[in-house]
Amino acid sequence: MSFDKVAIIGLGLLGGSIGLAVQEYLPQVQVTGFDADPKVRSRAAERKLAQTIAASAEEAVADADLVIFCVPVGAMADAAREIAAALKPGALVSDVGSSKQTVTRDLSAALPGAQVIPAHPVAGTEHSGPDAGFATLFQQRWCIVTPPADADPQLVTALCDFWQALGAKVEVMEAEHHDHVLAVTSHIPHLIAYTIVGTASDLEQVKRSEVMKYSAGGFRDFTRIAASDPTMWRDVFLGNRDAVMEMLDLFLTDLAHMREAIRAGDGETLFDLFTRTRAIRRGIIEMGQDDARPDFGRSDH
Amino acid sequence: MSFDKVAIIGLGLLGGSIGLAVQEYLPQVQVTGFDADPKVRSRAAERKLAQTIAASAEEAVADADLVIFCVPVGAMADAAREIAAALKPGALVSDVGSSKQTVTRDLSAALPGAQVIPAHPVAGTEHSGPDAGFATLFQQRWCIVTPPADADPQLVTALCDFWQALGAKVEVMEAEHHDHVLAVTSHIPHLIAYTIVGTASDLEQVKRSEVMKYSAGGFRDFTRIAASDPTMWRDVFLGNRDAVMEMLDLFLTDLAHMREAIRAGDGETLFDLFTRTRAIRRGIIEMGQDDARPDFGRSDH
Repeated sequence: MSFDKVAIIGLGLLGGSIGLAVQEYLPQVQVTGFDADPKVRSRAAERKLAQTIAASAEEAVADADLVIFCVPVGAMADAAREIAAALKPGALVSDVGSSKQTVTRDLSAALPGAQVIPAHPVAGTEHSGPDAGFATLFQQRWCIVTPPADADPQLVTALCDFWQALGAKVEVMEAEHHDHVLAVTSHIPHLIAYTIVGTASDLEQVKRSEVMKYSAGGFRDFTRIAASDPTMWRDVFLGNRDAVMEMLDLFLTDLAHMREAIRAGDGETLFDLFTRTRAIRRGIIEMGQDDARPDFGRSDH
Repeated sequence: MSFDKVAIIGLGLLGGSIGLAVQEYLPQVQVTGFDADPKVRSRAAERKLAQTIAASAEEAVADADLVIFCVPVGAMADAAREIAAALKPGALVSDVGSSKQTVTRDLSAALPGAQVIPAHPVAGTEHSGPDAGFATLFQQRWCIVTPPADADPQLVTALCDFWQALGAKVEVMEAEHHDHVLAVTSHIPHLIAYTIVGTASDLEQVKRSEVMKYSAGGFRDFTRIAASDPTMWRDVFLGNRDAVMEMLDLFLTDLAHMREAIRAGDGETLFDLFTRTRAIRRGIIEMGQDDARPDFGRSDH
């Protein structure tokens, strides 16, 4: 089975990219989009992020076989309630949120009886809004599908096929495991980046202009991550609180250990860690998940 | 005044890049290089990182007006002692190390009576060794010069001119201030990146292969930073211990505050920080210190 009509609720970076990717890679599929913000709808129509930009969420989901919520995870429940009456019986409801346990709970509660299979394409940039999307965002990126225990296997397969058609590599796992994996690979890195950029903004010893000027030594990479969408990220931390706290505490323990090594002048402990971490970098490059060029090819030399 | 002959001690990323840049942008200047590792010397000769690759440090510095140490900051004292007898009277001694107070102390102690003016080009990539250097590394990057109080102003000017000729923008400041600035813009980001990559390697809940697979959500940027040269970075943390500890403790206080906000479900505190941090990113892009393309142009779209 496959989908004839897809509705996208929320036309920011992810929703817009899905709309463009469907038109590019699944031209036989009809795609409708809606965003609660009229300015976003108007820009989405100009950029043709979907074939039809509907004036209401209900209108967007009418006759859709697949509805994908692309809103911050804290807004899923309200967005789902809005379409409850208009949802076609048997339609599949999915999303792109970065935390999966709370989203599964919220979508299922808001749409009783609906087929809910959450998903999370691990792809993005630091830009957001209707101008940020592009059709190739999902190419060679992973999409994690987290079916509830009672999900219809045919629908799971159909959703996996859909994401593969958009260029993604698909992995199926439990929502709880997803939340642990993403806490470490994405949520904690964002929390740390936001925090150090905040710390650096408020120093007495060093001026903010100096922090910006000399940022090429490592800091600027953190500022890129810390430029991500604030609403989305607030919701991620609140939505994945338990796994984030668990991973954060492991990190804090390790950081305290490094602090002690620096204080004690223990070069061996530092050197051991700094050597160990190179293996993971190599693995990521071998897996095609990053660019081996220095600075990701920032400088052309 | 300007320099007729420059000697580079240490032919890794920085030393090699200086050698290539001198040949490219200051073709009238003679440049000699030396590295303690014979394999590095042989590769440096193949890549022509300097006009002459000397067989000893003493031979490299003979007749040089400017000697630049490009070795890990913990190796400066030994490297300086090795050339003490061969150093031309009046020659300027400088370096490229990432911490300036300890380097000033070490070079001055090892070379009594010599003119020592340390410097730090804030430029680099995650690669190291004699294959990593390139002539344009310093273009549009800052070079911080930290003259001791009694430095000869003419030599300070000559060193600033030298770095400008290689494409750098030069700023003069006190070594102590440099060490605070770099602690926040470079050293703490590296320490955090190394630590989180280490934490992620050892998890019980999440496999290492999963960490690599799903690294596109933020983690991979940290792995790039954590792939930097281990010896160099061990020495940086030991050499700039006081400023690093001071900044690390500020960061830890802020992180504890964010942890508490997540625990308490305080979305407002999270949202406030996540909004504030965007301004610094904008400043960095306006200053030309980073690339505004999503993912630094990693994906070509």
